[in-house]
Amino acid sequence: MAVPNPTLSRAVVEHLVRQVVYERLGKPLPRAAAAPNPLVVNVSARHCHLTPAAVEALFGPGYQLSVQKLLYQEGTFAAKETVTLVGPRSRVISNLRILGPLRGLNQVELAYTDAVSLGFDVPLRLSGNIEGTPGCMLMGPAGFLELHQGVIRARRHVHMSPEDAAFYGVKHGEEIKLKVGGPCAVTFDKLLVRVDKSVKLEAHIDTDEGNACNLRPDTPCELVK
Amino acid sequence: MAVPNPTLSRAVVEHLVRQVVYERLGKPLPRAAAAPNPLVVNVSARHCHLTPAAVEALFGPGYQLSVQKLLYQEGTFAAKETVTLVGPRSRVISNLRILGPLRGLNQVELAYTDAVSLGFDVPLRLSGNIEGTPGCMLMGPAGFLELHQGVIRARRHVHMSPEDAAFYGVKHGEEIKLKVGGPCAVTFDKLLVRVDKSVKLEAHIDTDEGNACNLRPDTPCELVK
Repeated sequence: MAVPNPTLSRAVVEHLVRQVVYERLGKPLPRAAAAPNPLVVNVSARHCHLTPAAVEALFGPGYQLSVQKLLYQEGTFAAKETVTLVGPRSRVISNLRILGPLRGLNQVELAYTDAVSLGFDVPLRLSGNIEGTPGCMLMGPAGFLELHQGVIRARRHVHMSPEDAAFYGVKHGEEIKLKVGGPCAVTFDKLLVRVDKSVKLEAHIDTDEGNACNLRPDTPCELVK
Repeated sequence: MAVPNPTLSRAVVEHLVRQVVYERLGKPLPRAAAAPNPLVVNVSARHCHLTPAAVEALFGPGYQLSVQKLLYQEGTFAAKETVTLVGPRSRVISNLRILGPLRGLNQVELAYTDAVSLGFDVPLRLSGNIEGTPGCMLMGPAGFLELHQGVIRARRHVHMSPEDAAFYGVKHGEEIKLKVGGPCAVTFDKLLVRVDKSVKLEAHIDTDEGNACNLRPDTPCELVK
């Protein structure tokens, strides 16, 4: 199957160039260049994670998601398939993207602006922690699926390896700040640190957060304690 | 004309209570309570400012706006009247609120989330500085009005009196930070200071910014240099 490669992030290229340039010049590395890995900040637009059973209910028996775009973390992707989300006041969001791979639970992640427009009061939660959250109705080409819970705003977070965690002086479950520069500069406090040896350094913020600071590929970003 | 009073802001009440309590206890005031005025932070949802000629074009000759709600600054109000905004891809936002009083120019203020959904690329501008910004079509019950420019994202800003400016150690046109607490804590950098002797201390952020930090009436906010 031919799948487009994820676009090489500007942050990754800049990090490599910075390291090479300082090395060639024989100068000591500034802190950002001394970091073991580039910091990639990605905006997560509203999306859902589904179980295999949910995909079958929405798209039909035996249905397999296809990959539209590979995401930055190894093995993750935006699917070609989308669903329609129906909220409590029968308001609708069409084209809610499914992110793969499939998971053990169904979860819908919205920004507050999405939630307000749908009439949801969604809680801020760590992904996966959906006990007691509101539900919704999902609609696919083969059927409806009622979720009794699972609609959240995802807590802003950063994935990092143990090597990154050591560099930034943080542990799994602690918080760090994400400082974003540019004309709409913002510092996001309470960025949850999620350490795993299989991940690349990547901060995830939602569209409200991304739009509040007008995050662009060349916007300077750094993690600060 | 009977017009509802603006809701008394929680920040104003808290400031008064804090000052009285510390005075009664005979204790020195902490910095927040020592400030000459309470800090009110308001989220500006998308809206427009219109000229008298624009109101006549949209609502008919001699039409006068009526007041739906008084806003925090003396003499300002949200009108009962709204218009429909038509963007460059013929996408539409209905019920765009008009804010009064009328002005010498027409201006539409959108959050980036609004702009993205309409297909606009809107620049970040100080209110009133609309040279070279995109235009749009407005639609009212009596007619259409084409704006050749005037669609912006308003720069986050804080209105303050000379007394407030002296307390915070800033001058008109300088920038300060707005630190917002709570579970989605954010510090907004580059908050433009606008000093005028007739204004009350009030920071204005847009819906992207307000939703990024989930601003609520009891969310702690402070100005920091």
